[in-house]
Amino acid sequence: MGNHERGLIASKFGGDSVANAGGFRMAADIMFVDPISITTGEQLYRQSVILSAPGKDGNSDKITNLLRDTFDIFTKASEFERRNKVHRKVFDQIDRRFTQIGLDLGCPLVPDLLNVVLEGIEGGRSRQWTMSRGEWVSAQIFAYFIGGKFYDAVDLIKTKNNGEISPVSYEIIRSALTSNVKNVIPGYYAEDEDGNVVTFERGGSDVSLSIVGRGIDARLIEIWKKLNGMRATDPILVEDAKFISNITYDEAREIGIGGAEVVNKDTVGPIYRQGIPLDVKSSFAGKGINPLDPNYHGTMVTKTRVVDPTERVLGIAGKKGYLAVDIRKFGINDEYGVGARILEIFRKHKISYEYDPTQKDSLSIMLSGKYNGTLDETLNEIQSEIDPDRLDVTGNLGAVCVVGEGIKDNSMEVEARATAALARAGIKKAALNYPFGGISMTFGIEEYQVDNAIRTLCNEFSLRDLSIKKK
Amino acid sequence: MGNHERGLIASKFGGDSVANAGGFRMAADIMFVDPISITTGEQLYRQSVILSAPGKDGNSDKITNLLRDTFDIFTKASEFERRNKVHRKVFDQIDRRFTQIGLDLGCPLVPDLLNVVLEGIEGGRSRQWTMSRGEWVSAQIFAYFIGGKFYDAVDLIKTKNNGEISPVSYEIIRSALTSNVKNVIPGYYAEDEDGNVVTFERGGSDVSLSIVGRGIDARLIEIWKKLNGMRATDPILVEDAKFISNITYDEAREIGIGGAEVVNKDTVGPIYRQGIPLDVKSSFAGKGINPLDPNYHGTMVTKTRVVDPTERVLGIAGKKGYLAVDIRKFGINDEYGVGARILEIFRKHKISYEYDPTQKDSLSIMLSGKYNGTLDETLNEIQSEIDPDRLDVTGNLGAVCVVGEGIKDNSMEVEARATAALARAGIKKAALNYPFGGISMTFGIEEYQVDNAIRTLCNEFSLRDLSIKKK
Repeated sequence: MGNHERGLIASKFGGDSVANAGGFRMAADIMFVDPISITTGEQLYRQSVILSAPGKDGNSDKITNLLRDTFDIFTKASEFERRNKVHRKVFDQIDRRFTQIGLDLGCPLVPDLLNVVLEGIEGGRSRQWTMSRGEWVSAQIFAYFIGGKFYDAVDLIKTKNNGEISPVSYEIIRSALTSNVKNVIPGYYAEDEDGNVVTFERGGSDVSLSIVGRGIDARLIEIWKKLNGMRATDPILVEDAKFISNITYDEAREIGIGGAEVVNKDTVGPIYRQGIPLDVKSSFAGKGINPLDPNYHGTMVTKTRVVDPTERVLGIAGKKGYLAVDIRKFGINDEYGVGARILEIFRKHKISYEYDPTQKDSLSIMLSGKYNGTLDETLNEIQSEIDPDRLDVTGNLGAVCVVGEGIKDNSMEVEARATAALARAGIKKAALNYPFGGISMTFGIEEYQVDNAIRTLCNEFSLRDLSIKKK
Repeated sequence: MGNHERGLIASKFGGDSVANAGGFRMAADIMFVDPISITTGEQLYRQSVILSAPGKDGNSDKITNLLRDTFDIFTKASEFERRNKVHRKVFDQIDRRFTQIGLDLGCPLVPDLLNVVLEGIEGGRSRQWTMSRGEWVSAQIFAYFIGGKFYDAVDLIKTKNNGEISPVSYEIIRSALTSNVKNVIPGYYAEDEDGNVVTFERGGSDVSLSIVGRGIDARLIEIWKKLNGMRATDPILVEDAKFISNITYDEAREIGIGGAEVVNKDTVGPIYRQGIPLDVKSSFAGKGINPLDPNYHGTMVTKTRVVDPTERVLGIAGKKGYLAVDIRKFGINDEYGVGARILEIFRKHKISYEYDPTQKDSLSIMLSGKYNGTLDETLNEIQSEIDPDRLDVTGNLGAVCVVGEGIKDNSMEVEARATAALARAGIKKAALNYPFGGISMTFGIEEYQVDNAIRTLCNEFSLRDLSIKKK
């Protein structure tokens, strides 16, 4: 069976996975394993790979940060400082790390590539161009090492000037990337309509993976990183939070912590409607993990999944720094469309909200606290436009969300168990937000109780795995 | 102490309370009792009274309905039918009832008053003018009977052409109504800017009461009706639902059933900011009720109230005929202001919503089902404007709300108890809507479970009074 007839995989190695030559070797070994599909049992083929820039290694910072620093120092330097090459002090670290990787892997390209980068910076190339050069060098080293073919991202991925991915990218990728050879593409950047390099500030190389995966009609896309998959909640808070073996895009999006951050609009948006599964896994061999095993999977993120009838909560998210704006006016509910009017005032002032529980005559708008607009002006406009009986702002709020497809058909049980557990834990007040048949239920509580609430709900819904070794 | 130095009361007698001469006599007796203030212990003075048109009596319909029918029959009648006086058949019922009341009370005005009404209808007066004549006749009979002074509502209460009460009304009332004599005013209608009679379609004579109460700076306003005060929920559903002795405007507004319907924007709006207490009571003597006792009170509706620390839920509302419109789009939460955009589409199509629980990537909009706009057009516009991944409509939904100031500081306990009780009652799914520190918590459930849920929550929160006699 030819490679082009098999189900294809697009893979991506994160900065931690390619921080040094050892990481590159493991990534190369992985690329030559043909894994077994968890759903169909067929053998898949790793056809295209996205490379990140090397991440932190020992005391050395991420290459991307070092490039940014080089650029900033050079840009702000005086003529005198430039003649004294102050920026080269940071660039030397980049040079040392790539040179070492090149030597270890027997790749002779490194000196020329680094020369192009340095000349570009000194010749006035942009900050985004500079910051994307770590991936550009990485991918070329890796392509040489595995005998694959390097494609520059600017030739494959095009963005519109409003920042959106241009759909033409998928056509270009489909016709350019063949299965005769392993294709290697630098992550993190693309080319805009004016021919400039633009970086993906949110999601980085994961965005590149998603676009390439869609372009090649991948059967699976993979994110290789340091930690294995996703956990039921942030392990910094709950050390033994359960490992999640399968989660839907929607669930991961609702949880958003414990590894689930990788699922966001920019990274998963391009593949959401196609429903391409995503495997989030570790390239570091360890307890129960062998990256070279064709059957090894991390957390499988899929469009839908089979839910055990006894399953309720899959994961828990916690949020802090919320504000509630309460607007009360007797009879407001009879004033046609007043909710839309109030939210429009927030929109006008560029403040987006998280949820907005209502009563007959009041609207409570929960803000994440990370708004760009000015709250004072918004409140002034509400005061004059709506003439409320009361207008109150409550700070120091937070939220805890229980998430899972298993909640849908048993939400009353989950509500009853969650609230009883939280009440026993001494939490007396909570806002509620849950749509009929939803997969995520929010309890708005005081900020200082969020950590306590997460631990309490992890216990209540058995989201701790006692076999996970304490540090 | 002169009457003008005492705290004043504005009273209103509903149609059931003045359905016949016996009702008029009781109302007159009540007007000459000086009740004791429940808060200050001082003696108050019943200075002004609003009269409704006589309500149903035996097999005879409400006078207002009979007037409406007379008008409609006359208006639609052919020349031949008019010559045969077809409309007088209904008007004769009105004539008989008022004539009997006039004879019983020794009031000689009735024939002349009815003549004016009939000539008005036959002379082409408006439907609203016609429908308001029951109050106009009633009030004049009552004023004669108690030796009070009749004021026509058109001389006291003015509306703007947008339907709002003109603030000048309060000035007119303040200077016109003195305490030298009992003032009697017909309820239900006012005069618009063009000098036409306009009726209050929502709230009726209660609106007149509220306006007069505010105009005379009343210490208390009273609604006299058949049933005593408010109950914890609709007694048709829970026969022994507890009587509520004190409730806030806001609580009554949230409950909205079991007698609490009287508290709405039109009726309480004019007095909400002044905080004038409202006493809702029965003019029918009965078990534990003596309307002539100066200490008798029904349900006191006040701006604030003392809440016993053990109190949780005061009353329960149930609602049916809800629809949920679910809009899901991956990443929608990152699209700045999308909630406002979606609600604006509903507003444009004149569909107002009850509450709108959100998830990270979805918005669920609960509609009461009683919208005027067209849902199909709204959904089409959302489809084309928002391009959602999914757009679903779920029908046959309802809601049950637990209401009470005692919920505010103990909401987690109320949530835990309510959901545990509902789960035990076999209800498996519920949407949640509750603002932090709110007085009303909504559980969105399937419509067929609403009655079961109300009974369950009445038991859980001890809202049944076993001493209330079964019928």
